[in-house]
Amino acid sequence: MFKKILVANRGEIALRIMQTCREMGISTVAVYSTADAESIHVKYADEAVCIGPALSRESYLNIPRIIAAAEVTNADAIHPGYGFLAENADFAEVCSSVNIKFIGPTAKMINQMGDKNTAKATMIAAGVPVVPGSQGLVSNLAEAVKTAQNTGYPVIIKPTAGGGGKGMRVVHEENQLEKALNTARSEAEQAFGNSGVYIEKFLENPRHVEIQILSDQHGNTIHLGERDCTVQRRHQKLIEETPSPAVDDALRKTMGDAAVAAAAAINYEGAGTIEFLLDKHGKFFFMEMNTRIQVEHPVTEERYDVDIVREQIIIADGQSIAGRTFTPKGHSIECRINAEDPDHLFRPSPGQLQVFHTPGGHGVRVDSHAYASYVVPSNYDSMIAKLIVTAHTRDEAIARMSRALDEFIVLGVKTTIPFHKQVMHSAVFQSGVFDTSFLESFRYEKSI
Amino acid sequence: MFKKILVANRGEIALRIMQTCREMGISTVAVYSTADAESIHVKYADEAVCIGPALSRESYLNIPRIIAAAEVTNADAIHPGYGFLAENADFAEVCSSVNIKFIGPTAKMINQMGDKNTAKATMIAAGVPVVPGSQGLVSNLAEAVKTAQNTGYPVIIKPTAGGGGKGMRVVHEENQLEKALNTARSEAEQAFGNSGVYIEKFLENPRHVEIQILSDQHGNTIHLGERDCTVQRRHQKLIEETPSPAVDDALRKTMGDAAVAAAAAINYEGAGTIEFLLDKHGKFFFMEMNTRIQVEHPVTEERYDVDIVREQIIIADGQSIAGRTFTPKGHSIECRINAEDPDHLFRPSPGQLQVFHTPGGHGVRVDSHAYASYVVPSNYDSMIAKLIVTAHTRDEAIARMSRALDEFIVLGVKTTIPFHKQVMHSAVFQSGVFDTSFLESFRYEKSI
Repeated sequence: MFKKILVANRGEIALRIMQTCREMGISTVAVYSTADAESIHVKYADEAVCIGPALSRESYLNIPRIIAAAEVTNADAIHPGYGFLAENADFAEVCSSVNIKFIGPTAKMINQMGDKNTAKATMIAAGVPVVPGSQGLVSNLAEAVKTAQNTGYPVIIKPTAGGGGKGMRVVHEENQLEKALNTARSEAEQAFGNSGVYIEKFLENPRHVEIQILSDQHGNTIHLGERDCTVQRRHQKLIEETPSPAVDDALRKTMGDAAVAAAAAINYEGAGTIEFLLDKHGKFFFMEMNTRIQVEHPVTEERYDVDIVREQIIIADGQSIAGRTFTPKGHSIECRINAEDPDHLFRPSPGQLQVFHTPGGHGVRVDSHAYASYVVPSNYDSMIAKLIVTAHTRDEAIARMSRALDEFIVLGVKTTIPFHKQVMHSAVFQSGVFDTSFLESFRYEKSI
Repeated sequence: MFKKILVANRGEIALRIMQTCREMGISTVAVYSTADAESIHVKYADEAVCIGPALSRESYLNIPRIIAAAEVTNADAIHPGYGFLAENADFAEVCSSVNIKFIGPTAKMINQMGDKNTAKATMIAAGVPVVPGSQGLVSNLAEAVKTAQNTGYPVIIKPTAGGGGKGMRVVHEENQLEKALNTARSEAEQAFGNSGVYIEKFLENPRHVEIQILSDQHGNTIHLGERDCTVQRRHQKLIEETPSPAVDDALRKTMGDAAVAAAAAINYEGAGTIEFLLDKHGKFFFMEMNTRIQVEHPVTEERYDVDIVREQIIIADGQSIAGRTFTPKGHSIECRINAEDPDHLFRPSPGQLQVFHTPGGHGVRVDSHAYASYVVPSNYDSMIAKLIVTAHTRDEAIARMSRALDEFIVLGVKTTIPFHKQVMHSAVFQSGVFDTSFLESFRYEKSI
């Protein structure tokens, strides 16, 4: 087993990973930018190395500095968390070349799934349903027009590299196609250094349902059910839950089997998530695979009583997961508490926290690196806490989330707490019958 | 079902009760002393009534003011929490007389168990094992001497009213008896207004193991296993866990049956705890019954996946618990985080919290009313948080508690966190083999 793990990340996920390391008796190394010198993940780690200024490419995205920190501290493994270098094949490759175990898949696997177009081809070969669209990248307008005619409008243009909504364009009519194609290409080039795009039929009003899988180095893959991440604002997940109100046992089995087949198709290693779009008719389509831990992993942890970070470490250590079973129980919901102002289009609201009281009681978990007097930096993502509740039923979980949100007090910055309270009280959310367009029609009442 | 519940308490337990009320759709009324005006329980409640100055007898112990607050706000029930008026039969009686449901047993039941000597007689009649000792109160030295000669030394003198270590004296030789008797009497008179004391054989080095029971108004009683509260300092519980390392399935059944018989003997209603002393030979003896929710109730909640406050409310509403089953899973430990200085004999350390960061992650629960900038008042008990962890095994729970304590950062006041860390690391605690004298020989290393 590893003696020392360097966590190449910041914020709540860095702390989350170190918690498990400490439970397992593994030493931890934090890396941090100067903007994070006072962060809890730095104080909590057994050792900490400053790797540069606030700008991510000078610190959290700087591979040589992170590798140097690992070598200086004699770390024998690196956990990348999510975001930053978590899906960077070069980073995984460099780790491997200096004999530091990258806790996650190999560079090859990351590449196979990171290039969305290659991933899609792999899924087709594995018999996993995919959204109809272009065969490979579209290199010119004529190809785009032809594809769109074949699948029918609307279509979506997607970058083959990256994710998170950047470089995506929905096109409803042929006369919009040229402009959208150009914009998507240039956005993709800017965001990911890769202007390759492909075209898919745009599924109207699907749900976002993803399957958590675990694959060991010995060819065993299991799944831990689904997470429903349908509540999104501009492709950003805000609320996640498991089980999905739209998935019954039969569909869970079919989707789970497809996810396991997807991972098996690339001899995957580690924890991963297969994201699907689920339409109104119960048909689902492969969207992408995230070859890392997800922000929303805690809802699976609570429902399946499993520590996913521990599973990642055990798998990286070469242990087998053959015969492992996890029994689901209850209903878990996560709300992402972001330092954003829901009264003003969710614009970031960085600054110093004045009061920060987190909720407690039965069935409540709070993952956070924040505390009163902590300054939420403007340099990074705005999430300051994840609030996770678990109860026997979905209705009870919603009631529990509501009361926990009431108890969550943050002063000093604006947060998404009032927004989440209103969602929990909305009849549509409570009904469980909604799709990814839910928030477009959701009337958020500004606070007075 | 009740429409509005007044919570006649403060701090974490007031908040804890209101959490459940809110989940159940029941409105809440807080009462508070002027010292607690800024408390979270006041902000969280739907309504709040100031009932007087800091001094408890002018506020949290003042029955007329609390009843007035309930009447003014039209509350149809009162939850007393623990401490203060929770085991005050007069209060339960007054509630009943003004048609406000006291969430707990009747005045008669409280009296039957509140008077320790009467309780003991009741237990003997119900066939529950009790510690050998005086038949009833001892009224003079001669009786005390005779009892002690019959049971053999050491003996313990206990007040028939109250609890918490006040008015108790352990006597090892006959020549100490007179002085101890007089001191115990005068302490009991001062603390409880009742100088009655009785004498028992003093069990050397027992464990403190208690059984959680639930009894409805229809004669059904069930138990939710045991809590081991053996880690005590001067009769004050510091760490509680379930299951007990000293209790196997057979003993759990025997103790559980005895606890159910104890509750049935007085036709009990509500949640209650039967406290036993468990000796080295697996023999157990009734110590007392607490006719209220306990501080340490969360470890049972986590292991049995039950909301005990909800059960209290459901029972008070007259619902039946017949046929209810609760399946235990894993191991839960609670550490009481007190604003006390372990470097200086645990003296209270009130004052303003500067930094307050509570731990998170899988299997961690924090119940707390505190937050940075909150001033821990000197007027009340010093507990500022309960840290509860749950894991698959005791060893894993200890590892989880250790890492969670590492993450718990409190600046501004001294706390018991460093003490708990050392206990978690001690070989004796880890072995599970210890008794109530554990802390007497525990070498706490002062922080530098």
